[in-house]
Amino acid sequence: MSGNTFGKSFTVTTAGESHGLALVAVVDGCPPGIELSEADLQGDLDRRKPGTSRYTTQRREDDVVKILSGVFEGKTTGTPIGLLIENTDQRSKDYADIAKTFRPAHADYAYTQKYGFRDYRGGGRSSARETAMRVAAGSIAKKVLAAKGIQVRGYLSQLGPIKIEQFDWEQVEQNPFFCPDASKVEAMETYMNALRKEGNSVGAKISVVATGLMPGLGEPIFDRLDAELAHALMSINAVKGVEIGDGFACVEQKGTEHRDEMTPDGFLSNHAGGILGGISTGQDIIAHIALKPTSSLIIPGRSIDSDGNPIEVITKGRHDPCVGIRATPIAEAMMAMVLCDHLLRHRGQNGDVQCSTPVINGQA
Amino acid sequence: MSGNTFGKSFTVTTAGESHGLALVAVVDGCPPGIELSEADLQGDLDRRKPGTSRYTTQRREDDVVKILSGVFEGKTTGTPIGLLIENTDQRSKDYADIAKTFRPAHADYAYTQKYGFRDYRGGGRSSARETAMRVAAGSIAKKVLAAKGIQVRGYLSQLGPIKIEQFDWEQVEQNPFFCPDASKVEAMETYMNALRKEGNSVGAKISVVATGLMPGLGEPIFDRLDAELAHALMSINAVKGVEIGDGFACVEQKGTEHRDEMTPDGFLSNHAGGILGGISTGQDIIAHIALKPTSSLIIPGRSIDSDGNPIEVITKGRHDPCVGIRATPIAEAMMAMVLCDHLLRHRGQNGDVQCSTPVINGQA
Amino acid sequence: MSGNTFGKSFTVTTAGESHGLALVAVVDGCPPGIELSEADLQGDLDRRKPGTSRYTTQRREDDVVKILSGVFEGKTTGTPIGLLIENTDQRSKDYADIAKTFRPAHADYAYTQKYGFRDYRGGGRSSARETAMRVAAGSIAKKVLAAKGIQVRGYLSQLGPIKIEQFDWEQVEQNPFFCPDASKVEAMETYMNALRKEGNSVGAKISVVATGLMPGLGEPIFDRLDAELAHALMSINAVKGVEIGDGFACVEQKGTEHRDEMTPDGFLSNHAGGILGGISTGQDIIAHIALKPTSSLIIPGRSIDSDGNPIEVITKGRHDPCVGIRATPIAEAMMAMVLCDHLLRHRGQNGDVQCSTPVINGQA
Amino acid sequence: MSGNTFGKSFTVTTAGESHGLALVAVVDGCPPGIELSEADLQGDLDRRKPGTSRYTTQRREDDVVKILSGVFEGKTTGTPIGLLIENTDQRSKDYADIAKTFRPAHADYAYTQKYGFRDYRGGGRSSARETAMRVAAGSIAKKVLAAKGIQVRGYLSQLGPIKIEQFDWEQVEQNPFFCPDASKVEAMETYMNALRKEGNSVGAKISVVATGLMPGLGEPIFDRLDAELAHALMSINAVKGVEIGDGFACVEQKGTEHRDEMTPDGFLSNHAGGILGGISTGQDIIAHIALKPTSSLIIPGRSIDSDGNPIEVITKGRHDPCVGIRATPIAEAMMAMVLCDHLLRHRGQNGDVQCSTPVINGQA
Repeated sequence: MSGNTFGKSFTVTTAGESHGLALVAVVDGCPPGIELSEADLQGDLDRRKPGTSRYTTQRREDDVVKILSGVFEGKTTGTPIGLLIENTDQRSKDYADIAKTFRPAHADYAYTQKYGFRDYRGGGRSSARETAMRVAAGSIAKKVLAAKGIQVRGYLSQLGPIKIEQFDWEQVEQNPFFCPDASKVEAMETYMNALRKEGNSVGAKISVVATGLMPGLGEPIFDRLDAELAHALMSINAVKGVEIGDGFACVEQKGTEHRDEMTPDGFLSNHAGGILGGISTGQDIIAHIALKPTSSLIIPGRSIDSDGNPIEVITKGRHDPCVGIRATPIAEAMMAMVLCDHLLRHRGQNGDVQCSTPVINGQA
Repeated sequence: MSGNTFGKSFTVTTAGESHGLALVAVVDGCPPGIELSEADLQGDLDRRKPGTSRYTTQRREDDVVKILSGVFEGKTTGTPIGLLIENTDQRSKDYADIAKTFRPAHADYAYTQKYGFRDYRGGGRSSARETAMRVAAGSIAKKVLAAKGIQVRGYLSQLGPIKIEQFDWEQVEQNPFFCPDASKVEAMETYMNALRKEGNSVGAKISVVATGLMPGLGEPIFDRLDAELAHALMSINAVKGVEIGDGFACVEQKGTEHRDEMTPDGFLSNHAGGILGGISTGQDIIAHIALKPTSSLIIPGRSIDSDGNPIEVITKGRHDPCVGIRATPIAEAMMAMVLCDHLLRHRGQNGDVQCSTPVINGQA
Repeated sequence: MSGNTFGKSFTVTTAGESHGLALVAVVDGCPPGIELSEADLQGDLDRRKPGTSRYTTQRREDDVVKILSGVFEGKTTGTPIGLLIENTDQRSKDYADIAKTFRPAHADYAYTQKYGFRDYRGGGRSSARETAMRVAAGSIAKKVLAAKGIQVRGYLSQLGPIKIEQFDWEQVEQNPFFCPDASKVEAMETYMNALRKEGNSVGAKISVVATGLMPGLGEPIFDRLDAELAHALMSINAVKGVEIGDGFACVEQKGTEHRDEMTPDGFLSNHAGGILGGISTGQDIIAHIALKPTSSLIIPGRSIDSDGNPIEVITKGRHDPCVGIRATPIAEAMMAMVLCDHLLRHRGQNGDVQCSTPVINGQA
Repeated sequence: MSGNTFGKSFTVTTAGESHGLALVAVVDGCPPGIELSEADLQGDLDRRKPGTSRYTTQRREDDVVKILSGVFEGKTTGTPIGLLIENTDQRSKDYADIAKTFRPAHADYAYTQKYGFRDYRGGGRSSARETAMRVAAGSIAKKVLAAKGIQVRGYLSQLGPIKIEQFDWEQVEQNPFFCPDASKVEAMETYMNALRKEGNSVGAKISVVATGLMPGLGEPIFDRLDAELAHALMSINAVKGVEIGDGFACVEQKGTEHRDEMTPDGFLSNHAGGILGGISTGQDIIAHIALKPTSSLIIPGRSIDSDGNPIEVITKGRHDPCVGIRATPIAEAMMAMVLCDHLLRHRGQNGDVQCSTPVINGQA
């Protein structure tokens, strides 16, 4: 059954496999009158695209996006926006030898069981290649949000064992890891180099923050803002955990410690991550995700082939040793989609679009 | 905009506030021919209902559910199942004094900003009272799953600082905490008694496990099984984090450590939590959630009133000092809904309903 | 699979069978701040309810609706509105003898084939009894529309061979047929009396009109306003045809005849029925529906039983000889739901809720 | 808000304007294992494409479709199918002079009111050009249906005043009108030639029939099969009326006349058009649609410009004098989509996919 559309008011539908002809998306529900050009989408695509540093896959994709429809004389028309990214660097023959094997921790086995067979070229639809379209669509969401003063940004908060300790937004785009702590970049480089030599991979933690939000976004009880964010972020390849605000740290917190007290000048803390009762409070929205280590390893692993025979698997090809590194723009894109969707879903008193004027003006 | 329906094939729509006349639900898409009676729903409702131990709220609700439609001669008819639970113990006057205050860490402020005003009686729709209907609906999902040999069970894995160390499913229903480690129950009792004396609250971690699954459930890329589970579980009140399988532990894992190798006899481990590429592998599905501490405290907290004036808030009334305790059946219900929905969404070769016969028979 | 929810932003979910305990509905997405009481819903329910004249079924149902949630201190809260109508006059034993027969032109055969068995009491879910809930939910939609100056009204435009010739809104509520032509009422009474004597039934045509609309409602291309109206109206029991504006008369019209020319003072005609390109023009929206004759007849008809044996069927019980008569409030309710949903779905420039100021002020 | 996706299990999402770069579609939920090639789609596209006879628009579009994804080694993979049709014959300058005028009976005024401005080139998104993608997507649905023995075919049943009297499926593809009555083709040609000379246009009636269906498709009460068909068919440009089975003729029918009696050998008639209670009976499904005359006329019409000034409009360019002529494959495509969606939505006893074995084997 269909499962490739995200959102209700602002919907993103994608198609495309790792080694097919092209990736395609339809972004539907974008309000009319938003200035939009291909250049607006290219920036984030370039941040995500492979081959930009030695720490990511060496596949070379230009990831040039074409806007096929929905924009006229430089502005969105309110009609659906078609997007196209052609695949240019498909070395499908790299994959011929995995056609009948199930790589451990990959989607190979699950896809084959579900669909009866699979497009084995580079993981087919299960490849992270599809996230290019999420990033392109997310950039449209970012434009809609920007018109309301909302900004979504992400960063790497942990690479394997290396946690960030200092924080500077300015640093995030200055290194290939999206790391906001300049003092950790060298350690990350050293770690990644050793990892590649070892032929191994590692997990990562990414954080995403939205600023400039109004209170009132989110549709309880099932379409709470936090629930939709969890859906969106967990739908990214390799993500195994999602936190809002303090997340799992809440388990050991006491009520007095966790609660964000309020004064006329704003909240005094933000343990909640900007969402209470499933609705934005106007504070920054903060989410964290855990990404598992890349499954494509040259270190042999035990597995079976499609006939059920035991085999040993080595995955060649060009892979990211840490999928988390390129996940920052993807996580931003997913959060932007959710916020844009909820911005457009919200209706206040008598069906008007405005949220109430916040009682609290300042924010913690 | 609407947000009170969950699922696509098997949908659950609920309504009802903490101190309204009744809670109501419509469960739509339940296959015909499933044996169903009110007794089937009452078991889980009794596990969730308040006032069953000194560690939960002293509000007394019998939570008697009536099936209004969709069942004929003891079996589901395929038409929508209407459910009703009347509220009997509403002490709304307890809440009159909070009408104009925003309790810290509660949904009060966010609801007021969103809707312009709020039903302040017991938190209105934002109260965990609505979860009674989730549990009732979840029991229907459990019946559908049981007919396919699938079982969903949960347990408390951590209460504040107290983590479980031993595991015995038999113990889970033998204590008021759903704790599978009998050796920790006394410590939990002591902790909870101290907490109540202190007037404080604490967080908790709940785990949910599905067994007996076939491979092939989940609809990539956006409706991946893990993404929908994250949505479902994060939509539960007070939940701030969701993990599938190893979750945040993945951040520090290496690829060789995380990957679940396969042999003809089955998987050798289950770090993935039973889901790869967003699709069930046939292994047990494992999820964990973090619940924040209860926000209703008698220890004063700083806040503002609806006019923006600074105030001090003390929350009287009858509250759970650890909302996590009663969350186990709720988390089970949400996982059961997701699995039931995906069981009914799946279509294999040529549109047939069967998943492929698993290549691997045994499971780790 | 689920199919009992209508709408996207303003959604109505219903459950309940003809002879079950009760009908139930959840209306989700209603904006907050709308004044609403049970009395607001009772008016239309009384217009639809059975037993009000000798020309409708003699089943006696008070159809008293209870609002279970979503309204606080006389106003909608923005949270889902639960509705309950208890069934009081179920004479299920009337139906015991049809348990194993398929009444011609009834849903008996189709339901049994679909679900494997059926609730045979009074048609179960396929009975027009469920439309009571549509009317109740539609009244909520009417309140939301009224706040924007929009009114939805219907009338009987043809009863069997008798077509209306004069038109006066004032007359519609003055006779049991919702007939706007007072000069035809006696002929209708005579016709209906003869029909009952004959033991036969007849079809009817109902028209529904919305006035006071803004231009701009409708979401092309698939969720065009006319397409959604067609969906809504065709979902009413016994409806076999839907027209917007001139409908089937268009087949023989020439372009110069059909097109509604415009002047600065407004449109010069309304052949389009107020919708162009799937979007409201601001003119009155006009739809017509054809209802088939009631299928429950005491004149014997050939059929088969559930074992496939030939039988002769006579349908006793209490039935409407013309289901079209009571369909007027139902058709109004469905149109109101669609318009309310689209009022809340619309987003104009930059996501704002307002439609543009109409270029044309007057209307034809 | 989004409105460019149709279906729930088998979903079709489209984008693209008349004079944009390309039309694009994503078909999601197609079962895996269906043989599919571009040639399968091209046949219907060629039936719909402009410029094939002197009775349709002289715009020349090859309408060559590319499958971008979702097909591997000649079979569908179960992942979304991306489709692309490039626009090659855009003479946008033909439209420069209508940029500021509202053509009567066109969507110009409604689109401008809704979105604040519009892509005026050839009607933009409101152009029937988008139906090319419906046809391509419908061909995929037809392939899925064919695998179950279901066929969907359409024909022209009336052109302006000319009604068909004889019926022969073989004739339908032998003339440019899709007319099943060979004896009327000459009259149609004469009529169309006169119409063109006059500079006028005319309406038409199209009929669509599905054969080989199983009973049991349709999801009451709102997603009844007839309601979804009405939605689908009314969403086609220029359609103003939809009938199932006898449609508006029901208004004057008596119950004894309309009901389809049953014998062990099958139904004795098919007034219902194959649907009872919103569920397929296994008989042929029959629908009729009314299409309005083309709105683009060279005969001057009164209108206003975007500043509200009175103007006279003449529409040049290349237009179909009867849009109904090319509507046959479009109507087939929409019916095929609905049936395919419902084939995949249906779940019988215990969630199994099979409909019950029909009690009646023969069909009227």
